[in-house]
Amino acid sequence: MSDMVVMKKGATEEEIERVVKKIEEAGCRADISRGKYKTVIGAIGDREKVETIPFEAFPGVETIVAISTPYKLVSREYQPEDTVINVNGIQIGGNNFTIIAGPCSVETKEQLLETAKIVKAAGGAILRGGAFKPRTSPYSFQGLGEAGLKFLAEVKDATGLPIVTEVMDIRDVNLVAKFADILQIGARNMQNFQLLTEVGKIKKPVLLKRSFGCTVEELLMAAEYISKEGNKEIILCERGIRTFEPSARNTLDISAIPIVRLKSHLPIIVDPSHASGKRELVEPLSLAALAAGAHGVMIEVHPHPEEALCDGSQSLTANSFSQTMAKIQALAKALGKK
Amino acid sequence: MSDMVVMKKGATEEEIERVVKKIEEAGCRADISRGKYKTVIGAIGDREKVETIPFEAFPGVETIVAISTPYKLVSREYQPEDTVINVNGIQIGGNNFTIIAGPCSVETKEQLLETAKIVKAAGGAILRGGAFKPRTSPYSFQGLGEAGLKFLAEVKDATGLPIVTEVMDIRDVNLVAKFADILQIGARNMQNFQLLTEVGKIKKPVLLKRSFGCTVEELLMAAEYISKEGNKEIILCERGIRTFEPSARNTLDISAIPIVRLKSHLPIIVDPSHASGKRELVEPLSLAALAAGAHGVMIEVHPHPEEALCDGSQSLTANSFSQTMAKIQALAKALGKK
Amino acid sequence: MSDMVVMKKGATEEEIERVVKKIEEAGCRADISRGKYKTVIGAIGDREKVETIPFEAFPGVETIVAISTPYKLVSREYQPEDTVINVNGIQIGGNNFTIIAGPCSVETKEQLLETAKIVKAAGGAILRGGAFKPRTSPYSFQGLGEAGLKFLAEVKDATGLPIVTEVMDIRDVNLVAKFADILQIGARNMQNFQLLTEVGKIKKPVLLKRSFGCTVEELLMAAEYISKEGNKEIILCERGIRTFEPSARNTLDISAIPIVRLKSHLPIIVDPSHASGKRELVEPLSLAALAAGAHGVMIEVHPHPEEALCDGSQSLTANSFSQTMAKIQALAKALGKK
Amino acid sequence: MSDMVVMKKGATEEEIERVVKKIEEAGCRADISRGKYKTVIGAIGDREKVETIPFEAFPGVETIVAISTPYKLVSREYQPEDTVINVNGIQIGGNNFTIIAGPCSVETKEQLLETAKIVKAAGGAILRGGAFKPRTSPYSFQGLGEAGLKFLAEVKDATGLPIVTEVMDIRDVNLVAKFADILQIGARNMQNFQLLTEVGKIKKPVLLKRSFGCTVEELLMAAEYISKEGNKEIILCERGIRTFEPSARNTLDISAIPIVRLKSHLPIIVDPSHASGKRELVEPLSLAALAAGAHGVMIEVHPHPEEALCDGSQSLTANSFSQTMAKIQALAKALGKK
Repeated sequence: MSDMVVMKKGATEEEIERVVKKIEEAGCRADISRGKYKTVIGAIGDREKVETIPFEAFPGVETIVAISTPYKLVSREYQPEDTVINVNGIQIGGNNFTIIAGPCSVETKEQLLETAKIVKAAGGAILRGGAFKPRTSPYSFQGLGEAGLKFLAEVKDATGLPIVTEVMDIRDVNLVAKFADILQIGARNMQNFQLLTEVGKIKKPVLLKRSFGCTVEELLMAAEYISKEGNKEIILCERGIRTFEPSARNTLDISAIPIVRLKSHLPIIVDPSHASGKRELVEPLSLAALAAGAHGVMIEVHPHPEEALCDGSQSLTANSFSQTMAKIQALAKALGKK
Repeated sequence: MSDMVVMKKGATEEEIERVVKKIEEAGCRADISRGKYKTVIGAIGDREKVETIPFEAFPGVETIVAISTPYKLVSREYQPEDTVINVNGIQIGGNNFTIIAGPCSVETKEQLLETAKIVKAAGGAILRGGAFKPRTSPYSFQGLGEAGLKFLAEVKDATGLPIVTEVMDIRDVNLVAKFADILQIGARNMQNFQLLTEVGKIKKPVLLKRSFGCTVEELLMAAEYISKEGNKEIILCERGIRTFEPSARNTLDISAIPIVRLKSHLPIIVDPSHASGKRELVEPLSLAALAAGAHGVMIEVHPHPEEALCDGSQSLTANSFSQTMAKIQALAKALGKK
Repeated sequence: MSDMVVMKKGATEEEIERVVKKIEEAGCRADISRGKYKTVIGAIGDREKVETIPFEAFPGVETIVAISTPYKLVSREYQPEDTVINVNGIQIGGNNFTIIAGPCSVETKEQLLETAKIVKAAGGAILRGGAFKPRTSPYSFQGLGEAGLKFLAEVKDATGLPIVTEVMDIRDVNLVAKFADILQIGARNMQNFQLLTEVGKIKKPVLLKRSFGCTVEELLMAAEYISKEGNKEIILCERGIRTFEPSARNTLDISAIPIVRLKSHLPIIVDPSHASGKRELVEPLSLAALAAGAHGVMIEVHPHPEEALCDGSQSLTANSFSQTMAKIQALAKALGKK
Repeated sequence: MSDMVVMKKGATEEEIERVVKKIEEAGCRADISRGKYKTVIGAIGDREKVETIPFEAFPGVETIVAISTPYKLVSREYQPEDTVINVNGIQIGGNNFTIIAGPCSVETKEQLLETAKIVKAAGGAILRGGAFKPRTSPYSFQGLGEAGLKFLAEVKDATGLPIVTEVMDIRDVNLVAKFADILQIGARNMQNFQLLTEVGKIKKPVLLKRSFGCTVEELLMAAEYISKEGNKEIILCERGIRTFEPSARNTLDISAIPIVRLKSHLPIIVDPSHASGKRELVEPLSLAALAAGAHGVMIEVHPHPEEALCDGSQSLTANSFSQTMAKIQALAKALGKK
């Protein structure tokens, strides 16, 4: 059942018939439940077929109740077992806990290589780094572009770490896919449906970040856009939502982890660096993510945070990253995670 | 002055020097204010030059205070007088109050023409109607695409009403610009920086809707992206933000109207239909927008809301639109608006 | 009908019976609607009787749908016509638009008298002023207490303006009621149910401010607490809610005005001063409140804002208050309000 | 330094002097920092003395910057070492992780005793149970009152578990203190300053829940109200805040745990049951709280959730509580907690 139309007390037969007819015209079946006081009409069939009918505007209708979930391919009901994604031998999802780390943006080859060595030495599995940067201001540093992608490829060759990097422009999807092992869709593009459709057509895993202004259900719907095109390798990422609380940049929605795991088979990781915007919160939020059931974390690391071209105040140094990694590994072991 | 770096009590000369040097390296001047207890260092010059420096990561730094606004071209300081945009003889901005109305999406030529006649008869100035529709679900009706644009053009010819319609995909900018008098950027694309850049290069006015998850400052920054490319004809649109209050679809941020008018010279209108999601709130919110200083409203009208392919429950009928228009016109007159 | 229990597809007869029995044990009737796929059970009777039953914890239950509103006495259904409250000859509610103005807190008799004269001269109807002040910090000025109440009484005698002032402590209800014409319940006490109950027992109108963290429905429930004790003279007040938007202190929820007017017969006014925290927003928000259907506004005025002991930055001066009043009066006239 | 007043570019000497004079009149010292472009004036001294001065209303003033924290006694700076509270031999704070569990409300002596045995058997340290219940609706079950307190005392005698229970009314503080080992202040009363002051005068620990509409700083200010009266035994409790996300009742603000621990010496626990409103989220959120550094959790347990008089859908059963406890204990051990 997709939706239920609750008729007002005293709704006429004609009004009931009108709703039923409309449901049937849309190719669905109508399931009429007549109580002593009220009649309830269920619409059986694909939700998309009835979703566009504005039953609230019909005479005699009291309210509409949505019952079924609007996503399918990404739902736990559709696929009960966890999706596990293999990225050059690194497993993401299931019982694995994967550490992605690196600088906010690629600045120079040296900076990237130095960071990658820190990441690898401490046990990080995947290197992150932005070549294309979405910036609120048109006057801020926008990333190195293709030159940054090449640095990423060179550092991957040197260290063996797979690469995740953001794609912002549908015209760059193929270019980024040539260099990246995982394509990242940033929070601001979570509902850029054209971009979702395009990355749905390529054969590389996608890391889809939740928008700070969108719900968990909308995150799953955005994943559905990608999955529908054929790309089933999607990693979700919780990175904080906007609330009235000013003491961190965003409010990490830790409950989203168990909720996504109940509703979807896709892996979900946490970005504690962007969520908090504060270096001192990265470790406790990483441990909390692990304990809550996340499949990994994505942490910003910079060899010299005070020189960083963006987000320096939330980046961990080599030392602090190593210490945090040690705690994560100990806790993961206690929880039976790999 | 762009930003102020407040040093900790007891910060050393070396720490102060480091901040000063960094500011100067970025091509700005450092304005040192030494108090008995604390030293404050102002960064004078273009904010973009110092914005990327993570001073919070520097030793001896207590906090950073942003003083100046991060946008320029769209600021009231840059241009004190209101921008007034001329769309086929219709004025938007200044002392004008402009009514944009039409269906959520273009469905058929007949539906569009019937609606356009309702809009025109009641005194509406511009016709809205979506040919490309951003939908949360990939399974929902996505709009008629180019066929919808052609219907819009035909109905424009028939009624003389200028057309505003959404562009979602950078690949469609030229196509949409061929048909539309005003290009709409939807709320979900407010921070699609590539799309903003592309519509900044064309010579048609842009209607930029505020994202439900973004601040007024971010809205102005998004407008700055467009303006920076040369397109100065930007109409802002407040359409509600996400809050904990469930009784309307979004919370219309009425305060955004006077705030934008204080900070920017651009016209700002209100979309009460999407903000509330409820037909019965459209009229009071339209009147409130007018009284708060908005330059117009954009209202959904549908000849048969119960047949609408989207958002029928928030669309006004011909009758209710006429009544609302009469009240708007009376109030506008009392306020001395055109 | 109060609530509907939707059973899962395949729920057994035993599971259905268990729900029905529980509803009947609670003194309500169960209205069973059997569809082909799902069974829906309505609970007919007083909502309070079934509200405490956790049906979601019952086997076979899919979801619970609340249909009826949880408040009664304050609902528009209970009393279709507007409540109009008479305060010493001043009408609040219905087609009246009432101006309440005065300083945030009573500081001295001179300050209060000077302000009251400004208020009266400009056409204000009621004088506000806090003698007991709820302050986030225990170290902030907490108000003059009983001495402040006496100043209010003296200034009322001198000017004829009725008085509204806040009561925070159940032990002070009788004291405040001796001096005040209207007792104010502050936003932070909106869910102080003991205090609501106590002011429900007295025979003076109550001005109930919405909490910045509560919904419109909770505001109406708080009013129900007062009404249930016998005090029907309740004036609701919207004063902004907390959101992620930082450009005003709170986000004025202008939609709450028409929503409350649809759902309740009680008058609702707006406090633009506390909502915005900014003097320059008071006038546009006052006009918006009026246009949206509010029954009045409560504005902070101070003869010397820079000397104010609290909230000086949002207080209007004598001049700006007079100008704002003139615009309000012109708009009220155009809207046919008194 | 408390606050900094930033003067506008071109502010006159007279305007600067006026600010300085006002700061000095308030008993503070003014620290003038003159840069080439702007002058910044620091107010040195107790923040409460200058907090009430509305500098933003002064001519020549550009903005005000708050530097110091507004709370003192509860701050980490005031007392660097963790507060550890001893409740009948149970330690709360420091390196301890304490489990508080029990039913939402006390219903019968049998229900309470049965629950207490479940709590004790699984390793819970303290029994929770409401005798006075704050309810949004005046028609909902309001708790057993004094009878409930007596049941709590009897069950404490029978099991040895200390008791925490809520006090809502200042007139009940002594009564509740006679029975309870810890007095709870509910979320809706977090800014009931009279109640905070009264519990500040008694000699029993206080469990202070964060309001769903208040910030971390306001929580600490509320604790300051209690501490200022002499009662230093305060346990803070994070229980979720209101956001736009609908998939859990509230959004647990997990970042609040490390933030409070950085800013304050007081212990902080988490209430995953009220935060989420969903049984299946209680375990992952409990584990996340522990990993993030919380000092304990407060969990709702009910022997027969479907019979519960309130909040049955979020209560754990005996079985699920035991399983969750086992996981908590394993994780606490791995983290070196007691």
